[in-house]
Amino acid sequence: MATLTDDQVHRLDQWFRAANYLSVGQIYLLGNPLLERPLEREDIKPRLLGHWGTTPAINLVWTHLNRLIRERDVDAILLCGPGHGGPAAVANAWLEGTYSEVYPAIGHDRDGMARLFRQFSFPGGIPSHVAPETPGSIHEGGELGYVLSHAYGAAMDNPDLVVTAIVGDGEFETGPLAASWHANKLVDPVHDGAVLPVLNLNGWKIANPTIPARIHREELESLLRGYGHHVITVEGDDPADVHRQMAAALDEAHDMIRETWRAAREDGDLDRRPWPMVLLVTPKGWTGPAEVDGKPVEGTWRAHQVPLAGTRDDDAHRAQLEEWLRSYRPEELFDVDGRPVPELLEQAPVGTRRTSANPHANGGLLKRPLRLPDWRTAAVEVERPGASIHEPTRVLGSWLVDVVRDNDTTFRIFGPDETASNRLDAVYEVTDKVWAGEIRDVDEHLARSGRVVEILSEHTCQGWLEGYLLTGRHGLFSCYEAFIHIVDSMLNQHAKWLKTTRTIEWRPPVASLNYLLSSHVWRQDHNGFSHQDPGFIDHVVNKKAEVVRVYLPPDTNTLLSTMDHCLRSEHYVNVVVSGKQPGFDWLDAQQADLHCARGLGIWEWASNDDGDPDVVVAAAGDVPTLEALAAVSLLREHLPELKVRFVNVVDLMRLQDEREHPHGLSDREFDTVFTRDRPVVFAYHGYPWLIHRLTYRRANHDNLHVRGYKEEGTTTTPFDMVMMNDTDRYHLVMDVIDRAPGLGSRAADVRQLMVDTRRRAREWTREHGDDLPEVRDWRWDADADPQAGRSPSTTAEPDTAADNL
Amino acid sequence: MATLTDDQVHRLDQWFRAANYLSVGQIYLLGNPLLERPLEREDIKPRLLGHWGTTPAINLVWTHLNRLIRERDVDAILLCGPGHGGPAAVANAWLEGTYSEVYPAIGHDRDGMARLFRQFSFPGGIPSHVAPETPGSIHEGGELGYVLSHAYGAAMDNPDLVVTAIVGDGEFETGPLAASWHANKLVDPVHDGAVLPVLNLNGWKIANPTIPARIHREELESLLRGYGHHVITVEGDDPADVHRQMAAALDEAHDMIRETWRAAREDGDLDRRPWPMVLLVTPKGWTGPAEVDGKPVEGTWRAHQVPLAGTRDDDAHRAQLEEWLRSYRPEELFDVDGRPVPELLEQAPVGTRRTSANPHANGGLLKRPLRLPDWRTAAVEVERPGASIHEPTRVLGSWLVDVVRDNDTTFRIFGPDETASNRLDAVYEVTDKVWAGEIRDVDEHLARSGRVVEILSEHTCQGWLEGYLLTGRHGLFSCYEAFIHIVDSMLNQHAKWLKTTRTIEWRPPVASLNYLLSSHVWRQDHNGFSHQDPGFIDHVVNKKAEVVRVYLPPDTNTLLSTMDHCLRSEHYVNVVVSGKQPGFDWLDAQQADLHCARGLGIWEWASNDDGDPDVVVAAAGDVPTLEALAAVSLLREHLPELKVRFVNVVDLMRLQDEREHPHGLSDREFDTVFTRDRPVVFAYHGYPWLIHRLTYRRANHDNLHVRGYKEEGTTTTPFDMVMMNDTDRYHLVMDVIDRAPGLGSRAADVRQLMVDTRRRAREWTREHGDDLPEVRDWRWDADADPQAGRSPSTTAEPDTAADNL
Ligand SMILES: Cc1ncc(C[n+]2csc(CCOP(=O)(O)OP(=O)(O)O)c2C)c(N)n1
Ligand SMILES: Cc1ncc(C[n+]2csc(CCOP(=O)(O)OP(=O)(O)O)c2C)c(N)n1
Ligand SMILES: [Mg+2]
Ligand SMILES: [Mg+2]
Repeated sequence: MATLTDDQVHRLDQWFRAANYLSVGQIYLLGNPLLERPLEREDIKPRLLGHWGTTPAINLVWTHLNRLIRERDVDAILLCGPGHGGPAAVANAWLEGTYSEVYPAIGHDRDGMARLFRQFSFPGGIPSHVAPETPGSIHEGGELGYVLSHAYGAAMDNPDLVVTAIVGDGEFETGPLAASWHANKLVDPVHDGAVLPVLNLNGWKIANPTIPARIHREELESLLRGYGHHVITVEGDDPADVHRQMAAALDEAHDMIRETWRAAREDGDLDRRPWPMVLLVTPKGWTGPAEVDGKPVEGTWRAHQVPLAGTRDDDAHRAQLEEWLRSYRPEELFDVDGRPVPELLEQAPVGTRRTSANPHANGGLLKRPLRLPDWRTAAVEVERPGASIHEPTRVLGSWLVDVVRDNDTTFRIFGPDETASNRLDAVYEVTDKVWAGEIRDVDEHLARSGRVVEILSEHTCQGWLEGYLLTGRHGLFSCYEAFIHIVDSMLNQHAKWLKTTRTIEWRPPVASLNYLLSSHVWRQDHNGFSHQDPGFIDHVVNKKAEVVRVYLPPDTNTLLSTMDHCLRSEHYVNVVVSGKQPGFDWLDAQQADLHCARGLGIWEWASNDDGDPDVVVAAAGDVPTLEALAAVSLLREHLPELKVRFVNVVDLMRLQDEREHPHGLSDREFDTVFTRDRPVVFAYHGYPWLIHRLTYRRANHDNLHVRGYKEEGTTTTPFDMVMMNDTDRYHLVMDVIDRAPGLGSRAADVRQLMVDTRRRAREWTREHGDDLPEVRDWRWDADADPQAGRSPSTTAEPDTAADNL
Repeated sequence: MATLTDDQVHRLDQWFRAANYLSVGQIYLLGNPLLERPLEREDIKPRLLGHWGTTPAINLVWTHLNRLIRERDVDAILLCGPGHGGPAAVANAWLEGTYSEVYPAIGHDRDGMARLFRQFSFPGGIPSHVAPETPGSIHEGGELGYVLSHAYGAAMDNPDLVVTAIVGDGEFETGPLAASWHANKLVDPVHDGAVLPVLNLNGWKIANPTIPARIHREELESLLRGYGHHVITVEGDDPADVHRQMAAALDEAHDMIRETWRAAREDGDLDRRPWPMVLLVTPKGWTGPAEVDGKPVEGTWRAHQVPLAGTRDDDAHRAQLEEWLRSYRPEELFDVDGRPVPELLEQAPVGTRRTSANPHANGGLLKRPLRLPDWRTAAVEVERPGASIHEPTRVLGSWLVDVVRDNDTTFRIFGPDETASNRLDAVYEVTDKVWAGEIRDVDEHLARSGRVVEILSEHTCQGWLEGYLLTGRHGLFSCYEAFIHIVDSMLNQHAKWLKTTRTIEWRPPVASLNYLLSSHVWRQDHNGFSHQDPGFIDHVVNKKAEVVRVYLPPDTNTLLSTMDHCLRSEHYVNVVVSGKQPGFDWLDAQQADLHCARGLGIWEWASNDDGDPDVVVAAAGDVPTLEALAAVSLLREHLPELKVRFVNVVDLMRLQDEREHPHGLSDREFDTVFTRDRPVVFAYHGYPWLIHRLTYRRANHDNLHVRGYKEEGTTTTPFDMVMMNDTDRYHLVMDVIDRAPGLGSRAADVRQLMVDTRRRAREWTREHGDDLPEVRDWRWDADADPQAGRSPSTTAEPDTAADNL
């Protein structure tokens, strides 16, 4: 345990002061960075932006983490929950030299310091948060709540890494943060690194005290112990005293971590133990102005942003700022040229041990492609379209078996208790679900190590995966379609990160964030309206085109091909929506490969248009494809002279203009497929207007008629669901009749038949609780061997309970 | 404390058995409800859907709550976190008689019971969850995580209400649930009711054990105590034993609640005390089949859904089901006609004391309109458009003062620590922020009672407000625009609830859920890219048209008028987006009134088209309106002969087709305003494609050119933000020039000037860190008194730190 000498305290404090000085400088100063003369109006930024309050605690943690790293050669990164403390991270990265390495214009000299200050929250400069532009960061921290889940994701499969994570006491109140404490129940002490949470109880958020600061201390400690932690408290406002406590605290914490690792790795003692955490109780805006204009600031919410607001025009404020800056004794910190003094520089760890230069915080550097088995080895035989039946996600699971086995330290599957429900359970042949809690005999596939990571928190799953990807690994998030909306805002932040880092040269691309959304809107059999929502696609499509992709594979082989593509891709968000229920196979492996490569295409075997259709029937999504093909077969039967082209869309972004999305089709290509003037009846998986939004610039847009989910649903049969939303085969036939020119009264009887059949189908469900046999038993390929599959895809399995959906 | 006689235990168990019998019946049976003959294939539903596992615990709680209610005349409602236990709620509502009162076809007889069974999860029947169709429910529980925040919202301002909330141990792992435990830190013991959480530690979720069930029991208890609870444990699997424990537990809990109330209300002792909670440890699927096909079911995850999957076709399963049903001894529960025996009926509380008939769970019954002061009294004087400047939300705050004062038990403002930042702090003149934690001298506006409710959890705020509204009250959620995405999925569920209840006659409408989104995408001055996201509007617009409204008031008076309208409205989700920064006033009270009533309109004073424009310039949103008007003034200056019509849109839904949205304009009206053939340059607050999606059916859609946020942002000046997204005045002028027919080369010099000015404006920001003076000081009304406002709206306030944004 560290007992620091006075000299050690002095040196730590020197770094702490330097970081604070550089932080305050960034918030306020345009010029005069070394205070070589009294501050003048023009030295102050016209717009004072940033957050001082959280900054000193980050600087303190950074200071002490450096000591630990140097003394014990620890491999460590630091994530700042209150990412609004951007100045702190930038200051430390500059002191460590990393900043100048990646941004040579910002050197270790007066000019460099001036630029460092000026650029902060300044037009053309850097953002106010611990943004991707900051070396050493994998966590922007703008939207609060994700620091622990990111940290735990980063620690996975990095057995020697210590991920320190500062949690704001306001952030502590958020749901995602609250849930993520339990991520320590899924740490594998042999193969994973450790997370060291530092809860900064600075007492305040923006304009309010925080809850953890205003409950009894024993209550808070009880809570933290209940979260599975051993709490080490550091408390005070005298820097020297706090330095001593903090050094001892980090040593104690690191000792505990090492002992847990040793016990697990050497003695095979895998019992879960409390993990250490630090409760850091320091004033908000510590070392800043105690009072401004007669009101207390340090240690209150008033320190949250920019404590001296009138510094440019108010001489008294400016003088107070100067006093504040000088209190850090810059003359002891920087030489006359603005270079940090040698005693400071010596305190930084060396090379990649520097927190700001640790490659784990720049995952693209570490990322290696996955070893992917040829997906065709898992592909299903497809003799003729619609002749056989498979459960797409189940077959995908059989392929994932190999992916998991062949990438056993770089690939994980995350999910909110739905991996089996989404029928990926084949992976349990080669792995388990990781679980640090008690394991009982009755449990299946639970173990201390495992590649499947499940907690009933979509937030934690998303955070883990983000942390895992940003540190250079790969993964898949399998989730119910409706509930993936829970992470909408997390997706926003990750997409922003991807967008921004595309233009940061020193950050190579990371692996894509892959969603497999199953148990989708059309087949939420056990559940109802609350489980029906296809809108995540709409949400994702709002993100910057260059980082998002949406796939709707219509069958098993296209799902395999799509997922293979996604797992190879870099720096995207890939959304794949696929059913888990038995469904017809339409394409064999080779056709699936070609179809997915094209992204959309005409299915000749379902078309009779000879290159000149009367109408185009299009579909995107598995259930819509089924209904659209059934509609085509009805049209063939009843209106054989009608020339129908069938188009299937697997890559939704193909619909968009090539100027809007890199996957977008040129107008020429689009017009070739969808024609410039024929009616297009489009059966879509989600909200129909998305198709309009993607295609409104196309020549033939006025002829486009889209059916999809229009927010009508309940617990009912699969076919009743499509009928409720007018996306059923009969309605699609009616849509064709209403739009195909020249059909009119010739088809009136067919139209009437469709109306009547719909009614009959609805009544059948009401009477029998199941779908009309002619719907349930429908097959594209009437001659196919009826033994090829058990039951067609619009029907519930006989044992609907089988997968605990 | 209850010590039950054997007879009491027997009677409680009778209800428990009846509820279980009725639950199992719903899941499996089509016919033969009373088991008058052996079960046959045709008695079994063809599709077995539902969730047995969670059901017995709900039945147990209901049984015992009834005892408490009757014995002590308690006013209580019950919320089921695991809402997939729908059969339980339906069973109890039927036993209590309420079900037959609201659905007379489902009476207390054999036929009624048969219908009750058949309808469950059956086409044309009822959903599988505790859906709105279930009397007594305000919580569907399909998406897990919100039961406690709903419960705390329901308890607010209902000083005698006990809200019992069952929390699933899987649900316990979710973020929103984890955060919401701390809602007890904002309970006012004098004016609020109590929440009694019952954590059902049944050990399992879908396919995994739960974390709370697999940590040490002391660890769990430490956690729950840390959440501020006194934990009363009820544990076992012998019904009689559990009945005794449970009765004692509820008595003890209720005693504690009463004592806390008494101390606060009679002795004025407002110190926060631990609130009771019940830790209910019973097996998942308790009283169901112990084993099926040789595998343990009761007490394992296999009990989650439908334990006997093959009941229809498998004789052994069917026999086992029959045995299971008979184990409840139906002959003791129902008479030969299917009517519950008198001893059962006597156990139900009477009238509105019945949990299923409590009016608090049908808030529309209790709702009274708000007393709203005339918003015109708060309106600002507007001499001429653009002659004065106000901060819209600040002025709104001054009106809310009266709203808060005049509705001091029925209106609350919720927010994640942003009420002051969003400049609504005038309300602190008449109220405080409620806070049950420690209050210190330094605190401002914190008190044991208050109408403002703040926690740093958007989830908890949303849940509170939903619970408050669904029990018949009114409220406002003020939030940063970007982070409201955190509650996307909660909004989904609430919108679904509203949509469904519109057609449930016995549920009168509730008050609208009102969002005030400020600190919006264009003015996130202290922050950056992470805080910029206008996509919540897109998300909301995907919901059923009849329940959603979106407003973008361009100035202070229109904000007042809009908010007045929203607070009067019923059964909608209203999204209002408004800046908090100083902005020009465009409309006086009367004009604002008319404009908001129309929803969109031509601003004549900004138009020179004499009814026949060359081009239409349109805007929606405060910043876009400013830029569009500045563009119009540039056009006037440089191209005075160009006839420009200016249109402002405040009610976004007006753009949509009247067939799509009740607020939609007819094509005729739309064409009158936007013309059928003139170019329309539209400056929009959010993602531009939303405007296309709303208008793609309009005649003039091909001429519509929309500018808006295209996901470009950082920490920079206000004008740089609009420039980054090509939504600035200069770009809008260029857009007009590029599209207005016949301008062409005549305007080439003007176009060039715009290009150059944009460049100059950008460079100015890079040099000065502030906006070009001609932009910053621009005014529509050049002659206006410069003293009328301090600084124009595209500029940061001098003291950007003032509101701790
Ligand atoms: C999810 C979310 N909601 C709201 C905000 C707005 N916000 C920014 S900082 C802050 C207070 C943070 O308090 P705390 O976590 O204690 O940080 P510190 O005191 O260290 O600044 C809030 C509410 C946010 N950034 N993220
Ligand atoms: C937010 C969310 N994620 C996932 C699901 C899918 N789901 C339905 S039930 C369930 C398990 C619930 O377990 P628990 O809360 O313990 O309930 P119980 O054991 O009483 O059934 C899950 C994960 C859901 N309904 N909501
Ligand atoms: Mg804080
Ligand atoms: Mg459970």
